[in-house]
Amino acid sequence: MIGCDCDVCRSSDPRDKRLRSSIYIQTPECSFVVDTGTDFRTQALRENIRHVNAVIFTHSHTDHIMGFDDLRRFAYARGYMPVYASAETMRDLERVFAFAFKGLNPFPGYLKPEPHVVDGPFELGSTTIIPLPVPHGNTLVNGYLFSRGRNRDSPRALEKLVAYLSDCSAVPDAIVDLISGVKILIIDALREKPHPTHLNVEQALEVARRVRPNQTYFTHIAHELPQSAESRLPSRTHIAHDGLKLNL
Amino acid sequence: MIGCDCDVCRSSDPRDKRLRSSIYIQTPECSFVVDTGTDFRTQALRENIRHVNAVIFTHSHTDHIMGFDDLRRFAYARGYMPVYASAETMRDLERVFAFAFKGLNPFPGYLKPEPHVVDGPFELGSTTIIPLPVPHGNTLVNGYLFSRGRNRDSPRALEKLVAYLSDCSAVPDAIVDLISGVKILIIDALREKPHPTHLNVEQALEVARRVRPNQTYFTHIAHELPQSAESRLPSRTHIAHDGLKLNL
Repeated sequence: MIGCDCDVCRSSDPRDKRLRSSIYIQTPECSFVVDTGTDFRTQALRENIRHVNAVIFTHSHTDHIMGFDDLRRFAYARGYMPVYASAETMRDLERVFAFAFKGLNPFPGYLKPEPHVVDGPFELGSTTIIPLPVPHGNTLVNGYLFSRGRNRDSPRALEKLVAYLSDCSAVPDAIVDLISGVKILIIDALREKPHPTHLNVEQALEVARRVRPNQTYFTHIAHELPQSAESRLPSRTHIAHDGLKLNL
Repeated sequence: MIGCDCDVCRSSDPRDKRLRSSIYIQTPECSFVVDTGTDFRTQALRENIRHVNAVIFTHSHTDHIMGFDDLRRFAYARGYMPVYASAETMRDLERVFAFAFKGLNPFPGYLKPEPHVVDGPFELGSTTIIPLPVPHGNTLVNGYLFSRGRNRDSPRALEKLVAYLSDCSAVPDAIVDLISGVKILIIDALREKPHPTHLNVEQALEVARRVRPNQTYFTHIAHELPQSAESRLPSRTHIAHDGLKLNL
């Protein structure tokens, strides 16, 4: 954190240096990113990202949207960028990035979003994406469940691969049912101390006990929680770090 | 640039790795930043910035404002952050960061801007700051001239220390007169090739010949212009790089 001298901010473990939360998903058919936070350009350069075929937003807080304009590099060839977001988040994106949504800039290479309001499951390539509305303080934001056909012979038998709940203060039973038994649960776990708009470690572990994923990864971690705290967590429970790659 | 394999993007010279343009000014009385681009947090952490007493904006393009919310760390102690911008830029800031300007967030530690519309010279501590309206394509944006008393005995005899023109496609004669003979000219020089909204190297050199500063520093440089091009520039003309510090 800016201007902080705590143990985590001065840590020599590079995994304790954290940029804003986001995930990038590559599939055989297409690649997409969930959220373009303020660090999106830095992250895209670090990971040498060459293709983003669509962007999905969880919500419109600054740490999740302010890198939006840097999507222009990935939209250049096609001339537009498919944007998936709830109606409320789309309204905020249209307000903040008015120049892009209104197409005010005539120069080629500028970002032209193609809005898709998320009001139920949708598909990107062969991935089925189910929005997971969860409370984030007083607001409702979207997590997402990513599922794919178990194999070529039974493409309709969907396997729950990843549930991404980056920002939440609770996970309602209906959402737990939807993601129950998911392979990978990526979940908000800000710190040990409770917080009004984020789950803390204890609350995130409780959600994991209800969901019963194969593996749990904590994300959206504050500087109060060092990477080294992972050793105190239950088995198959990890603290995610910048640049972490998972192969499914 | 994202997804680019050109010589500059693959350069081993760390000065060829460039974040969004911005300057930070420390004076005996106070410290302030000009623009909070998308990389503001990264830059503040890199330079271990501990105090920002005010922020001044040149204009509201994304590469100059999207790090605004990270000012919260510097506003926490006082509870507010003085924001200096033209009326048009302030309107854009109020639209994009509506939650902050409307004070919607009741939690302590969230950014509360204190807007100061710039319509003429103003002072921060003992520094006099004169807005320099310059064309940036079809829009008009503010450069700024920073002057201070020559010495304690004649505080009214202002010395022109720095003229900052980060984004401009031309510099009108009236602005050249205002900044004539400035100690340091920091000026937009995007690349060799002409561009509709930025000066190129030849045009920036022409402005420098008219202004006659002690030293000229190019900024807002694109990946078409390597740091190594500095050797081909006239004397006292430099290509600025991230982290460059000037003592005046």
